[in-house]
Amino acid sequence: MSVNKLFVLPGDGIGPEVTAEVEKIANFLTKEGIARFEIERGLVGGAAYDAHGVAISEDDMARAGAADAILLAAVGGPKWDKVPYDVRPEAGLLRLRKDFNLYANLRPAICYPALADASSLKRELVDGLDLLIVRELTGGVYFGEPKQIIDLGNGQKRAIDTQVYDTYEIERIGRIAFELARKRRNKVTSSEKHNVMKSGVLWREVIIDLHKREFPDVELEHQLADALGMQLVRRPKQFDVIVTDNLFGDMLSDVASMLTGSLGMLPSASLGAEDAKTGHRKALYEPVHGSAPDIAGKGLANPIAMIGSFGMALRYSFGLTELADKLEAAIAGVLDKGLRTADIKGNAPKAISTSEMGDAILAEL
Amino acid sequence: MSVNKLFVLPGDGIGPEVTAEVEKIANFLTKEGIARFEIERGLVGGAAYDAHGVAISEDDMARAGAADAILLAAVGGPKWDKVPYDVRPEAGLLRLRKDFNLYANLRPAICYPALADASSLKRELVDGLDLLIVRELTGGVYFGEPKQIIDLGNGQKRAIDTQVYDTYEIERIGRIAFELARKRRNKVTSSEKHNVMKSGVLWREVIIDLHKREFPDVELEHQLADALGMQLVRRPKQFDVIVTDNLFGDMLSDVASMLTGSLGMLPSASLGAEDAKTGHRKALYEPVHGSAPDIAGKGLANPIAMIGSFGMALRYSFGLTELADKLEAAIAGVLDKGLRTADIKGNAPKAISTSEMGDAILAEL
Ligand SMILES: CC(C)[C@H](C(=O)O)[C@@H](O)C(=O)O
Ligand SMILES: CC(C)[C@H](C(=O)O)[C@@H](O)C(=O)O
Repeated sequence: MSVNKLFVLPGDGIGPEVTAEVEKIANFLTKEGIARFEIERGLVGGAAYDAHGVAISEDDMARAGAADAILLAAVGGPKWDKVPYDVRPEAGLLRLRKDFNLYANLRPAICYPALADASSLKRELVDGLDLLIVRELTGGVYFGEPKQIIDLGNGQKRAIDTQVYDTYEIERIGRIAFELARKRRNKVTSSEKHNVMKSGVLWREVIIDLHKREFPDVELEHQLADALGMQLVRRPKQFDVIVTDNLFGDMLSDVASMLTGSLGMLPSASLGAEDAKTGHRKALYEPVHGSAPDIAGKGLANPIAMIGSFGMALRYSFGLTELADKLEAAIAGVLDKGLRTADIKGNAPKAISTSEMGDAILAEL
Repeated sequence: MSVNKLFVLPGDGIGPEVTAEVEKIANFLTKEGIARFEIERGLVGGAAYDAHGVAISEDDMARAGAADAILLAAVGGPKWDKVPYDVRPEAGLLRLRKDFNLYANLRPAICYPALADASSLKRELVDGLDLLIVRELTGGVYFGEPKQIIDLGNGQKRAIDTQVYDTYEIERIGRIAFELARKRRNKVTSSEKHNVMKSGVLWREVIIDLHKREFPDVELEHQLADALGMQLVRRPKQFDVIVTDNLFGDMLSDVASMLTGSLGMLPSASLGAEDAKTGHRKALYEPVHGSAPDIAGKGLANPIAMIGSFGMALRYSFGLTELADKLEAAIAGVLDKGLRTADIKGNAPKAISTSEMGDAILAEL
């Protein structure tokens, strides 16, 4: 049996609690001989800053590079609000994305029927919601240069960020979106602001072109990013796959995830290019939720998004599709039994802890 | 009685229908001697392109500049999807904003109790919602240079947009937000992405500084733009005044307006700097909704957002506060009577037309 190397970066806040539940499951699978995982652990974000004065160390970057998949929980917290810009917690995450060229961020927003009432939207609007945001993750205003603050004198400063997109960057993320749509409901909504931004003009042009050349069988529509934000709130079930740039994807995926009422439940995958020889993709898996410093260390966090992210790793990095299916079924099974952590408690009689939830999923598995 | 010069730009789609209702009301007020309005009319957007090949003519720019207030309905539609970038409908609107330095865009999101059920959010989350987004309107990625598409050869292009903010731009929009908060519930939420963007770093710094110096009595909090998008969906009533940049303001105000279930009801104002001598501000008033080409010319459009925008003009440009109050009361009165246009019909027995709604508000007045 081949060894699957997992590099776990718990990060900050509730990170260590939720990654512990994944390790529990991975170790069980190894022990039972169902699959073989080798786990290493590193530091990222505030945790790395406290230990090494950087947002991720060179050593951990190297170890991450040697792994088959990276599992990251979350970074940041008020404790590090004042650290220098270049070593702020987010810099660790952004470096992982950029250095490993993880350009394709897949963010499903799924509303579990058992949890539809936890949404702030009316039940009928979200029950059964299943959309996928495909966000470009290594370009745009996140990384474009110049990116600086200039002192103009007289108490005036000028801050500059640069949004840049090249044809090939738009094309490769578009391709991922169309390919995924084919395995789903065959519809892609592309979003930008071509009425205001040149990057939006190019984005639209490249997507239209790609569609015509390679994916004429997939339904394609365009929505301006502001209008799409509206439509997500108004009638989210109209969407299947949404493809958009780094910054719009950041905002829209947060709005989308909140619709589901299941923020603590949503996993994500960030995939790199396929290696021409091995066919292997670098990949990082992380929950959509943040580090939630306010509840850290209390056993209140919901580990399902993290466990679901591990499930995505099984599917996309390790080719363990059947096991991924089983893990997802185990999560659904536990929910069907009425087991709930605090964030999704609703009218349930009592909430269980982070590790109780991990145990329950493992038992179900 | 002083003459109030109104420059009306109906624009495209449902624009002519909804501005007609405002003119009806303004003409009535003039005839009755309650106030004096002088109305001129111009073209903007697709309508201007069809007539003059530009998004707004020099002549109309001059006439707009000579008016006390500009009333614009909406621009754009599929008919002009293929016109050159520089003369696309939106260019007319953007030129008005930029040339008249209308940097402060006020976008209230109010949920009328009578309409709370039309929201896609659960009633208790939005009933009584009353927040105000103060959006910076003449800076950021909308106008920053370079803004271009470069041909790199080999079928590759590079698109660039530039987000730029200077200290003074952030300070003046921050001041407007704090001043307005003092007349409301005294709370400002400032939003950016300082974890990723240098403009966010400067934005936060300038707002904190301004708050300390001039508005220590106002409550100030900060939320990242993605998190704010989430919170708008999750618990919108936590907000009073939100201050943010041009692009985030564009997206967040669309999400916020959709929460209310009253998109056809929401007015907005875009204000310039005060003239040092006269104290007068250049100003443009427009509905938050778009040109809705699909229902144009059918008498289905809701004129309330446009009439409400006229109400904001009475208040901010003409100093006719009492009349503005009366107009708003008339709108509320008509709604209380159960009169509804198609967009807000809900379970009402029947919908009335655009002009019937205008007539009803006039009668109520
Ligand atoms: C933590 C932050 C840098 C990050 C982003 O802006 O991409 C986060 O919001 C996300 O969506 O993954
Ligand atoms: C029409 C468009 C240029 C405009 C914008 O992006 O500002 C609109 O979306 C708005 O919010 O007023």
